[in-house]
Amino acid sequence: MPSIIFDGPPLDLAQKRALAQAVTAAAVKVYGLPPPTMVVVFHENPPENVAVGGELLCDRPKS
Amino acid sequence: MPSIIFDGPPLDLAQKRALAQAVTAAAVKVYGLPPPTMVVVFHENPPENVAVGGELLCDRPKS
Amino acid sequence: MPSIIFDGPPLDLAQKRALAQAVTAAAVKVYGLPPPTMVVVFHENPPENVAVGGELLCDRPKS
Amino acid sequence: MPSIIFDGPPLDLAQKRALAQAVTAAAVKVYGLPPPTMVVVFHENPPENVAVGGELLCDRPKS
Amino acid sequence: MPSIIFDGPPLDLAQKRALAQAVTAAAVKVYGLPPPTMVVVFHENPPENVAVGGELLCDRPKS
Amino acid sequence: MPSIIFDGPPLDLAQKRALAQAVTAAAVKVYGLPPPTMVVVFHENPPENVAVGGELLCDRPKS
Repeated sequence: MPSIIFDGPPLDLAQKRALAQAVTAAAVKVYGLPPPTMVVVFHENPPENVAVGGELLCDRPKS
Repeated sequence: MPSIIFDGPPLDLAQKRALAQAVTAAAVKVYGLPPPTMVVVFHENPPENVAVGGELLCDRPKS
Repeated sequence: MPSIIFDGPPLDLAQKRALAQAVTAAAVKVYGLPPPTMVVVFHENPPENVAVGGELLCDRPKS
Repeated sequence: MPSIIFDGPPLDLAQKRALAQAVTAAAVKVYGLPPPTMVVVFHENPPENVAVGGELLCDRPKS
Repeated sequence: MPSIIFDGPPLDLAQKRALAQAVTAAAVKVYGLPPPTMVVVFHENPPENVAVGGELLCDRPKS
Repeated sequence: MPSIIFDGPPLDLAQKRALAQAVTAAAVKVYGLPPPTMVVVFHENPPENVAVGGELLCDRPKS
């Protein structure tokens, strides 16, 4: 605690490492709590499991 | 935002498409916000990861 | 289960009633599960607790 | 981590204390992880923010 | 409802069964609600999807 | 989407503003998605609603 839960698209290992570090650093600074209290969880969701505006991401035309 | 997170059993693609459309339409109407603000996420959980009344769904007798 | 969690702005009672009914009806139809299995939770978030694009909703210019 | 998030009706302090202790003890035993890793969060939801079967809890007839 | 969502490491079937039973029993006792109202969901997260103190669990030195 | 949900202690307005900006900037960089896709939600939890190691934060001895 605090816990920080991401629901986003899949990430590779280097991306998770970078994002966890950056978000934890920002949270430590703002909450004023020690780093070991910060828990980050990445939920990786495939494009067919997310919709924006009622349209699944997998149904979007490729640009 | 709003975000709408489903935790339920697995769905096929047509089911996700239908549910995302219906829920987004209802939310747009009630919140009075434009469709692109609506995010729907489906978390699909296998029967061994959900319990009702303390019993895992995979342990339920088949009817 | 399924559980359906909304994180959005505050709603009045009539809005919650309408949205819960519509979403539950859609979910019953798509999941093929009985209505009493459907749980809807509304988390109401004040504008200063939500940011889109890094900007808190309470900081947005009024249109 | 693990984090354990409850979405339920309001609880008084003694109830929160009892439930946090019992759930943490069970989780420590099953996960095999030390107690300080266990985070429990109680989201307290008023009856008008929860629906079961499409009906808000505040609309249920009193028994 | 109540819904109880775990975000933790993977568990085997026997662990899920034991944890669901213990947590549901504790919740039934404290909330004073019948067992069928209690829904438990296990989100299993691989070590590369969780960070504590900014460090991914998969990057921790083995002890 | 992505949505980023914080469950932590209460924050003042300046803290929310700073944390939303920093986290969104980090997420934009790592996900490679435009800022308006990023939604941050702060759930503020009073000390009696959070337990670490089975102990409510409000029960901790003051240091």
